[in-house]
Amino acid sequence: MRAKIQPEPIITLLTDFGEEDPYIGAVKGVILSISYARVIDLSHNIQKYNIQEGAFYLFSVAKYYPKNTIHLAIIDPEVGSKRRPIIIQTKNYFFVGPDNGVLSLAAEKDEVQKVIEIKNSAYFLKPVSKTFHGRDIFAPVAAYLANNKKPEEFGPLIQDWIQIKIPKVRVNKNEINAEIIHIDRFGNIITNISQEIFQTINKDEKKFIQIQVNEFRSKVGLCGSYNEVERGEFLGIFGSSNFLEIARNQDSAADALNVQVHDKILVELPID
Amino acid sequence: MRAKIQPEPIITLLTDFGEEDPYIGAVKGVILSISYARVIDLSHNIQKYNIQEGAFYLFSVAKYYPKNTIHLAIIDPEVGSKRRPIIIQTKNYFFVGPDNGVLSLAAEKDEVQKVIEIKNSAYFLKPVSKTFHGRDIFAPVAAYLANNKKPEEFGPLIQDWIQIKIPKVRVNKNEINAEIIHIDRFGNIITNISQEIFQTINKDEKKFIQIQVNEFRSKVGLCGSYNEVERGEFLGIFGSSNFLEIARNQDSAADALNVQVHDKILVELPID
Amino acid sequence: MRAKIQPEPIITLLTDFGEEDPYIGAVKGVILSISYARVIDLSHNIQKYNIQEGAFYLFSVAKYYPKNTIHLAIIDPEVGSKRRPIIIQTKNYFFVGPDNGVLSLAAEKDEVQKVIEIKNSAYFLKPVSKTFHGRDIFAPVAAYLANNKKPEEFGPLIQDWIQIKIPKVRVNKNEINAEIIHIDRFGNIITNISQEIFQTINKDEKKFIQIQVNEFRSKVGLCGSYNEVERGEFLGIFGSSNFLEIARNQDSAADALNVQVHDKILVELPID
Repeated sequence: MRAKIQPEPIITLLTDFGEEDPYIGAVKGVILSISYARVIDLSHNIQKYNIQEGAFYLFSVAKYYPKNTIHLAIIDPEVGSKRRPIIIQTKNYFFVGPDNGVLSLAAEKDEVQKVIEIKNSAYFLKPVSKTFHGRDIFAPVAAYLANNKKPEEFGPLIQDWIQIKIPKVRVNKNEINAEIIHIDRFGNIITNISQEIFQTINKDEKKFIQIQVNEFRSKVGLCGSYNEVERGEFLGIFGSSNFLEIARNQDSAADALNVQVHDKILVELPID
Repeated sequence: MRAKIQPEPIITLLTDFGEEDPYIGAVKGVILSISYARVIDLSHNIQKYNIQEGAFYLFSVAKYYPKNTIHLAIIDPEVGSKRRPIIIQTKNYFFVGPDNGVLSLAAEKDEVQKVIEIKNSAYFLKPVSKTFHGRDIFAPVAAYLANNKKPEEFGPLIQDWIQIKIPKVRVNKNEINAEIIHIDRFGNIITNISQEIFQTINKDEKKFIQIQVNEFRSKVGLCGSYNEVERGEFLGIFGSSNFLEIARNQDSAADALNVQVHDKILVELPID
Repeated sequence: MRAKIQPEPIITLLTDFGEEDPYIGAVKGVILSISYARVIDLSHNIQKYNIQEGAFYLFSVAKYYPKNTIHLAIIDPEVGSKRRPIIIQTKNYFFVGPDNGVLSLAAEKDEVQKVIEIKNSAYFLKPVSKTFHGRDIFAPVAAYLANNKKPEEFGPLIQDWIQIKIPKVRVNKNEINAEIIHIDRFGNIITNISQEIFQTINKDEKKFIQIQVNEFRSKVGLCGSYNEVERGEFLGIFGSSNFLEIARNQDSAADALNVQVHDKILVELPID
């Protein structure tokens, strides 16, 4: 169990608001007007409307925070529609945001304990706009949670919340049909092949894999760090998120291969 | 009146410094060397030299902060000239920045109580550069205000400070000649038509308006949320800032209409 | 000596991680799980792998922070190789990051007292990845320093750490062969000509210089502020970092001259 070492509650912020518009500034103000929480920016540059990208970000970082951290994630293309605002309480954290899956990858990883539909308008900023629930619903709810309000005070328990998944790979003898799930600033291509899955087909611990993405087909070494190959050379590596990355030492693999998130990738272990 | 719930004073930061240059890092350091204030980033990506955009940002968010928050805004194209550094004390807040209008929209909304010209160099970082008053004048002044120095200690009261305004609309029977005042990351086009003005010409609560921007002319529905129309369709909506927005559901209205801030827009109510 | 006015230790963060990927969010979480430090974002938009740019940023801002601030800088193209993780203790600060020079300009400016190679894995996040020492080594080490662990607890003293320098100018009678060391968001061109060097050749305090960059050759006025010339006009100015800048009033000098960092610039004092 994580220690709660912070005297102040922590609220992390993840949005697709960008930084030029007066949105994230309003969210922070609402929180600080209600609670003495410490506000931590994760990113406001999630691609707009991209629930999957937001979910992957939160999945990758939530677990590093101290117990009782409140993770607020606002990627909300359907704001003002019937999609529900929710709180997910997990073993260590609270997640607050729209019920569109953005919270689900991170929440499920930390053992979901209960999911609440936010309905109690006593905790909303009035009047509630239909275009900015981040400011009028999610920010005050996160702040009141930081003030030790119980999730149950915000509305009823629900069971049918939306869960998205990291797409599953298809394993076939010595090959894995996989998908690109993220491309980072450095051009590293992150696939959905976890180290565990990979080990099931690589029992004799081969040091090379054959990859195929679009027209590109190549044998690349499996490395422990980017610097085991020459600058600009390709490699395969189980990166910081424990998924197989296709990378180049100090250069962009994604630019060289001209790939995008969701592109298919075939990984084969050479047969001797 | 807003509660002062924060044990630490809050200083918000709004600049056009961007994030690649060693400017905002210096400003934060100067503040933290003087005061135990909590430093909150609003945005550092205001378009460079764009006073109007900075003023609109601050106008939109300042009011959400707790009482006694110090709002520091540094969009300062005339740094080092005779433009004056000022403090504006309002009913709930302190505003610190150059006297070029960037503070004025937000300050006037909160009832201006006094305006001080910052002159007392005892509170400046020495030597004072002529290119970076953000670091040498505004940051230390904000920090000393956070330490409970009174505005009067920084210089004399002035009356003739610069006020900019949101451009006024021209109403003519059933039409409003308006202007685009902001375009957000999502491509929503924010006009200067407030809900109050609009209601004066829409007494019978029609649900459609005719808009004209450049060559584009169309009838669009007045909606309560973006999702009341199909994805990609246009709509009119009174958004989170209470101004009429021309938007598209999950798509960019600004890209489709190829418009910019300051472009004219004509809004008509159809005659039955 | 700088006062230590902060009840909470401060950790500043400087990286080339960008803001779209789940890297800086993980680093902050690790720090906050260990320490009650206050985390201050400097920039995460240093050009990727650009050690020189990161070093210049830190050099420009570190000194404005209160005593005992921990400056964490992660521009780390050789992560996972033999490059060492280090702590540099200076008169006022602690610097944590890779031993590739990124810390060195700022550290040397503040009098280096000792340099430690980080080796004690008791303070690492396990398992230590070979691709993300920012999260697994640097973040926890910075956090434990904030908790008052002594640098010596993390590993042995070393002497042979990597120091980079701001390139030196070549002075020849009335001319200085210099180099562009930074170009900021406003298009100001910052050279490596310090005010001290310049004064050695400008004893009679001339008010004009002749500059040559690529094909561009022009006489420009030496000004005290950007606004001493007309809008769009060129000027020379000793800017906030005390180096000679070639700038234009409210316009981009870099765009007009089509220059880049490392380009040569010749500055001459006209002979009467």
